Amino acid sequence: MHQSRLAGFIIDCDSAALDGPVAFWGAALGMDARPPDGAAYVPLDAAARDLVIEVQRVSHPSRVHLDIETDDVEAEVGRLEALGARRLEQIRSWWVMEAPTGHRFCVVRARASLEGRAGTRRWP
Amino acid sequence: MHQSRLAGFIIDCDSAALDGPVAFWGAALGMDARPPDGAAYVPLDAAARDLVIEVQRVSHPSRVHLDIETDDVEAEVGRLEALGARRLEQIRSWWVMEAPTGHRFCVVRARASLEGRAGTRRWP
Repeated sequence: MHQSRLAGFIIDCDSAALDGPVAFWGAALGMDARPPDGAAYVPLDAAARDLVIEVQRVSHPSRVHLDIETDDVEAEVGRLEALGARRLEQIRSWWVMEAPTGHRFCVVRARASLEGRAGTRRWP
Repeated sequence: MHQSRLAGFIIDCDSAALDGPVAFWGAALGMDARPPDGAAYVPLDAAARDLVIEVQRVSHPSRVHLDIETDDVEAEVGRLEALGARRLEQIRSWWVMEAPTGHRFCVVRARASLEGRAGTRRWP
């Protein structure tokens, strides 16, 4: 038995610097930038929407990808494989996966307990 | 004076039929499919997260795009142009725009009043 839910999304930017992308997306979405999380990530303050939204510096074409958060990454990855997704790459504690529709997304460890949180589903 | 906020996101699928994509994304995100909205859109039930999430059939490469909702589309598009975005195409009541980061997104009319809703920002 494990739990998961949509965590939020990452705005992947093929950009040498993140200042410009963060300034645009923070103002566009009306969310203040928070302190950088390492060299590649700047979180936006999406707490009012109970979402994780981050601007990420990447070296592939710019896109948006979803994150799914869970209390058991291996169990959740297995559940998603059974639905037709496939594992692409493990990065530290999370997995990059590819949906049958071709979209890439990540399965990440929930930063806080998912118990009773909006949208959390419990899987057998 | 107008208001806007992140509405949610659209999972664009370059797929002849939407059944497969909707089955995958509904199960992956733990959100039930709702009745189709025309031939190209199937909403997922993301009410618990106060988001609009839809699977859309498209004829360009699959991607994810954001929607920003507002009570004044023209004012919001103007605000985003001042931030560096540009108008690409008007479709019925909404505008497709391109961010300075290259991401495409839409500015749509809010389906319900934004007054007092989580994450709503009021712009001068």
